[in-house]
Amino acid sequence: MSIREIPMNRVRIQDAFWSPRQTLMTDVTIPYMESILRDEVPGAEKSHAISNFRMASGEETGAFYGMVFQDSDVAKWLEAAAYSLALKWDGVLSQRVDEMVGLIGRCQQKDGYLNTYFTVKEPENKWKNLLECHELYCAGHLLEAAAALHEAAGKDALLHICGRLAGHICDRFEKEEGIPGHQEIEIGLLRLYHATDNPRYRDMALRFLDLRGQDPDWFKTHTPAHPGIHYGGYDISPEDTLYNQSDVPARRQTVARGHAVRQLYMLTAMADAAAETGDQGLLDACQRLFDNITERQMYVTGAVGASAHHEAFTVDYDLPPDRCYGETCASVAMTFFAHQMLKNRADGRYADLMELELHNAALAGMQLDGKRFFYVNPLEVDTRVSGQVPGYEHVLPQRPQWHTCACCPPNLARLISSLGKYLWSEDDKHVYSHLFIGSKVNTHFGEILMESKYPWAGEVRYIVFSENEFTLSIHIPSHVQKFTLTINGKAIDYQLRDGYIYISRAWKKEDTVELDFDLPVRRIYADPRVRSCRGKVAVARGPILYCFEEVDQCAPVFSLILPANADISTFGPVPELPGDLIGLCMEGKTLEYQERLYSSSCAKPSPCRMIAIPYFAWANRKKGDMTVWIQEG
Amino acid sequence: MSIREIPMNRVRIQDAFWSPRQTLMTDVTIPYMESILRDEVPGAEKSHAISNFRMASGEETGAFYGMVFQDSDVAKWLEAAAYSLALKWDGVLSQRVDEMVGLIGRCQQKDGYLNTYFTVKEPENKWKNLLECHELYCAGHLLEAAAALHEAAGKDALLHICGRLAGHICDRFEKEEGIPGHQEIEIGLLRLYHATDNPRYRDMALRFLDLRGQDPDWFKTHTPAHPGIHYGGYDISPEDTLYNQSDVPARRQTVARGHAVRQLYMLTAMADAAAETGDQGLLDACQRLFDNITERQMYVTGAVGASAHHEAFTVDYDLPPDRCYGETCASVAMTFFAHQMLKNRADGRYADLMELELHNAALAGMQLDGKRFFYVNPLEVDTRVSGQVPGYEHVLPQRPQWHTCACCPPNLARLISSLGKYLWSEDDKHVYSHLFIGSKVNTHFGEILMESKYPWAGEVRYIVFSENEFTLSIHIPSHVQKFTLTINGKAIDYQLRDGYIYISRAWKKEDTVELDFDLPVRRIYADPRVRSCRGKVAVARGPILYCFEEVDQCAPVFSLILPANADISTFGPVPELPGDLIGLCMEGKTLEYQERLYSSSCAKPSPCRMIAIPYFAWANRKKGDMTVWIQEG
Repeated sequence: MSIREIPMNRVRIQDAFWSPRQTLMTDVTIPYMESILRDEVPGAEKSHAISNFRMASGEETGAFYGMVFQDSDVAKWLEAAAYSLALKWDGVLSQRVDEMVGLIGRCQQKDGYLNTYFTVKEPENKWKNLLECHELYCAGHLLEAAAALHEAAGKDALLHICGRLAGHICDRFEKEEGIPGHQEIEIGLLRLYHATDNPRYRDMALRFLDLRGQDPDWFKTHTPAHPGIHYGGYDISPEDTLYNQSDVPARRQTVARGHAVRQLYMLTAMADAAAETGDQGLLDACQRLFDNITERQMYVTGAVGASAHHEAFTVDYDLPPDRCYGETCASVAMTFFAHQMLKNRADGRYADLMELELHNAALAGMQLDGKRFFYVNPLEVDTRVSGQVPGYEHVLPQRPQWHTCACCPPNLARLISSLGKYLWSEDDKHVYSHLFIGSKVNTHFGEILMESKYPWAGEVRYIVFSENEFTLSIHIPSHVQKFTLTINGKAIDYQLRDGYIYISRAWKKEDTVELDFDLPVRRIYADPRVRSCRGKVAVARGPILYCFEEVDQCAPVFSLILPANADISTFGPVPELPGDLIGLCMEGKTLEYQERLYSSSCAKPSPCRMIAIPYFAWANRKKGDMTVWIQEG
Repeated sequence: MSIREIPMNRVRIQDAFWSPRQTLMTDVTIPYMESILRDEVPGAEKSHAISNFRMASGEETGAFYGMVFQDSDVAKWLEAAAYSLALKWDGVLSQRVDEMVGLIGRCQQKDGYLNTYFTVKEPENKWKNLLECHELYCAGHLLEAAAALHEAAGKDALLHICGRLAGHICDRFEKEEGIPGHQEIEIGLLRLYHATDNPRYRDMALRFLDLRGQDPDWFKTHTPAHPGIHYGGYDISPEDTLYNQSDVPARRQTVARGHAVRQLYMLTAMADAAAETGDQGLLDACQRLFDNITERQMYVTGAVGASAHHEAFTVDYDLPPDRCYGETCASVAMTFFAHQMLKNRADGRYADLMELELHNAALAGMQLDGKRFFYVNPLEVDTRVSGQVPGYEHVLPQRPQWHTCACCPPNLARLISSLGKYLWSEDDKHVYSHLFIGSKVNTHFGEILMESKYPWAGEVRYIVFSENEFTLSIHIPSHVQKFTLTINGKAIDYQLRDGYIYISRAWKKEDTVELDFDLPVRRIYADPRVRSCRGKVAVARGPILYCFEEVDQCAPVFSLILPANADISTFGPVPELPGDLIGLCMEGKTLEYQERLYSSSCAKPSPCRMIAIPYFAWANRKKGDMTVWIQEG
C-alpha cells in the first residue's frame, strides 16, 4: 500500500522561515526569471529561450540561440509559475502563462513533436541522437509543467499539448528502442500519468527505465558519427556509459556513479514507479543507491556530485570540500528522490534528507534576495584559488547574475514554490507529517494546523480539526535526541519507529499535540575514510549547518581552530544579513602565520573569537574565504 | 667574483649512499635507456628516438614517431652516457656513443640545422613555430650533451656538430627576434660557451633571456594559425603567455608561474648568466623567484608544480598533497637552479635545496632498481582515487615501465651520474663543500678527501692533502642545530655565515676536520596558509623525509594519527627494501571507521604502531596508500 502525497492545493504554508521565501519566489524570483527568459535583464547572460519558441512558431526570425535544452528553462519556469499562481493568484501572471502556453502550442508539429532546436535549427535531425540532443529531456520538463499547471493552477491547455507530445513519444518509443540521454522524461511521463490516469504514459516511463543498461553498447550503436556539434554543451562520448548510467540495468545498480542529476532524476522516477507498481526490485535498487549516496557520497551539507568533471559522483568517501561540485540541481533532485521514496515507506531517513537539502545545499544555491544563483556549492572557498587555479575554475566565491546553462535557478524556484507538496502525506490509516514547516493541511480525515518555530527553535504544535480516528505520524528529525510530547497538555504514549512517532486515537476537535525539544549546537564528524575531513569538525544546530565566513572573523578563516571543549553560543540577528538568522559564537584559536613555509615547530595559537553563520546564507556579503569544516584541536 | 664549480672529472664520489646509485646508473639505467631508445624493451612504450635519427640521415625509411621533442631523449641519454664514461670507462659504451654521435652528425644539414622531426616530417616548417615546435629546446639538449662529452669523456665530435648547430641558431636569431617556446637553449648555449669560450654563444643566450617578455604579444603575432597538430603534445595557446613566462621580462618576474620546468630551466640559465656577467638585476630576479618557490610554492619533499594542468606552478601556498604534480624533471631542474645559484654566492639555502631534491623529490622519481620512473611525485596517494577519479588521473601509485613523454628518466640519469659536479666549488681563497657526499676532490689548492656517513649518521670527515693557505667552507645543513667541529681532534674556532662554516688556515698535510652531529627525528609543520596541511605533520631525519605506506601499517593509512608527544625511534633495515635504509617506528593511533558517514562523536582512536620509510623509497613494494603528511593529535 503506497502512501499518497497530499498535493499543494490542499496545503497552505504559514511559516516564519519558509513563507517569506515562498513570497520571494512569487514576487521576485519567478518574475525575474521571466524577464531573463525574455532577455529583458541588462547585463545578464542572454537566454533567448522565449525567442527560440517564437522562431519555432514562425512569429520571429533569426537563429536559435542557447543550449540544445534551452526549452527546458521555459518549461521549468512554467512549472514554477503554476505553483506561484497556487500560492498567490495573479491575473497578470496567469495571462502571461496562458500566452506562453499558447506560444508553445503553436510550436507543436502536426505529429505532436515539440522542440524548438530541432524545429528551427536541425529539423532533419529529429530523434537522431538521443545521447546528446535532450529532446526527451525537454519533453519531460514540459510534461512536468503541464501536470503542475493542471494540479496547481487548474490550467489544462498545456496538458492537452503534452498529451499529444507524449502520444508522439509513445508512438515512437513503444515500438523502437530508445534510451534517454538525460533522464527526465520518465519523471514527466509519470507525472502526466498521475494527472490523467492514462496508463500508457506510466508504461512508457517503465519501458524507458527498463531498457536502460540492458545493452551497454546501445549508445555506441545508436549514436551518429560525431557531427562536430557538442549538443550537450560539451563532448558526451557514447562509450562513457557510466556517465548516464546506461552501463548496468537500473534495477541492478548498486552505487551512484556518473552525472549526478541524471542519476537522481532516474532514481526519482524509479521511486515513483516503485510506489505505483509495487515493484520490489525497483524499490530495492532505489534503497541501495539511497544508502550509497547518503552514507558514502554526500557532503555534510547535502551536496552531491563531488567532481566538476561531468558534474558527477566519483567514488565512495571522495568528498573534497574545496573542489566540490554539488550542483544545485542535484540537491533539488535529492529532495525529489527522497520525496518519492516517502510514497513507498515512511522512513525518517527520507524526511531527514529532504530537511537537510532544503535548509542547506539546495537553499544555498540562491542569494537571499532571490536574484542570483549558484550552480556549484562548495564547502570551502579559498579566494586565492577559487575560480582561478586549475581544478577550481568552477568554484565561485559569489553567485553570478545568470548562467549560460541556466538549469539550476528554475529548478530551485519550482522546488521552493511547491514546497507544500513535501510536507504531508496520507494513506487509509495515517496522516504523515514529514517536515516541521508551519502549514494548514486538508487531509481526508480533516484539517490539521501545524505551527512551528523550526528551524530556529524546537517548538511544534499540531491542532487537529477532525473528529476521525486515524494515526498521526510525525517525523522526528534524527538530530532530535530528546523531546517531550503532549496532547492537550498531557504526556502521552507513542510509538517511535523508523524516525516517526505514531499517535493513534479517535481525535477530538482542536486536540493539540505539542512537541518540545532543544536545538543544541552539534558537532559533526566525518568517517575517517573521508580523507579531507581528518581532524575537522562541522557545526550544526537543528537542521541548519553552519559555516565560517571571512567577513565575520578577526583572523584568516584557514588559520582558525575550534577547541574540542569550546562552548558555542547562539546570537542573532547576524550583522548585515536580512531575516532572523541565528549565528553561532565561540572562543577559538588562530594560528599565527610562520616566517618559513616549513618549520620545526607548530604555529603558535592565540585566542580568537569565531563566528559561524548558516551555510545557506553564505556569500551574501563581502567576498571572502569560507569553510564548513573547521580544524578541531 | 664568481665561484667556480669543480667539474666532475676532478671529483670522485666514494659514498655508501650515493656510489651504489651511481653504479645503478652506469650498470642498469643508462644501458636500459639505450635499449628503450632503440625500441628493444618488450612491453615498454615505443620510443623510436634512434629510428627518427636514422630516418633523418636517410639510413632508414618510415614515418617519424613520437613527440616533436623526441630528439631530446637521445641528447639527454648521450649526456648521461658521457657522465657514465667518466664514472667508469666502458669501451663498448664509448663506441656506441661515438656511433650515435656519428649518426647525429649525418643528420645535420649543410647550414647546421639539426632536428629529426623537421627533417623527416615537416621540412617546410622549420623555425616557423617557436611556441610549440621545440627546435630550440632539442638543440639546447644537444648542446648540453656536447659539452658533457667534451668535459666528462674528452669526446669532441658532438662539440663540433653543435658548434655548427649553435652557429646556425646564432646566424638566425642574432638578427631576427625569437623567443624559445620551451626554455633550454639558454642553458645549452651557456654550457657550450663554458666548453669553448666562444662569447657568441653566451651573448646569444643572454639575448634569448633578454627578449623574453619584452613583447607579451610576441607569440600571438609570431605563431602561425593553428595547423591542427599539437606539436607540444597538447594545445599550447599563444595567448597563454604566463605558461611559458613570456608575459613579463625575465628580470622583472617576481613569482614562479606557468610550466614549472620551463620556469626552472630559465632560472638555471639566468643564474649561470648572472654569475658569468655579474648582472645584479638578473641575480636579484633569480633570488626573488628562488624565495618565492622555496618559501611559497614548494612541497616539503622539494616537489614543485602543484597543478597537473600545464604541469605548472599555481599560486602561493596552494600545495595539495594528493593532486600534486611535482614532475621529476622539475625537481631535477630545481637542483640545476640551486647549483647555478652557488656560482654567485655561497648561501646555505642553495645547498639545502640541492640536498632536499637529491634525497627526496628527485630521487623518488626512480624505482630502487633503476628501471622505472615517476613523472608525477605525489605526497599522498589514495589508491581508490589515484589514476581514476577526475583530477587524479596523473597520480599513479606505482612507477610505470616507460612514458610516452620520456623527459624525466634521462633527466634523473644525467643528474645522478654527474653528481660529482654538485659537491664542491672554489674561488681564489675558498674551497666550498656543499653536500656531505663522500668524495675525493682535486682543488687548485690540492686534494681533499671527504668521508661521510650521511644521510644516515652525522659523521663527516675532511682530510686535506695540501700545504696551502686557504679557507675551507663547509655547508652545514639547516636542520643541523648543533655540531662539534675539530681539527686533528681539537676543537677550533670557526665562522658560521649563511649556512657555511669558514675555516681559514695554512693547512698541513693530512689535517683532518671532523664534524659530528646528531640526526634526531624532526617533525615538520607547514605554515597555516597551506590549507591542506592544517593539523598535519611530516617526519624527517637528516635530509630524508619520511612517508607512511600501507604495506607497513596495521591500520589504514588515512586513519592514522601521530600523537604530538609520541617518541619516534629508528630501525633498519626495512623489510623487503634493499640497501641500508633506516625506517622510523612510533606508537600512534588509528581511528576506527564509523557506522555512519557523519556522526555526532569523533571516531574512537585505538593504539597502533606506525612505521615510516624514506619517501624516496616509496612504491617499491606492494601497491597501496601512502602519505607524507600525517594527522597530529
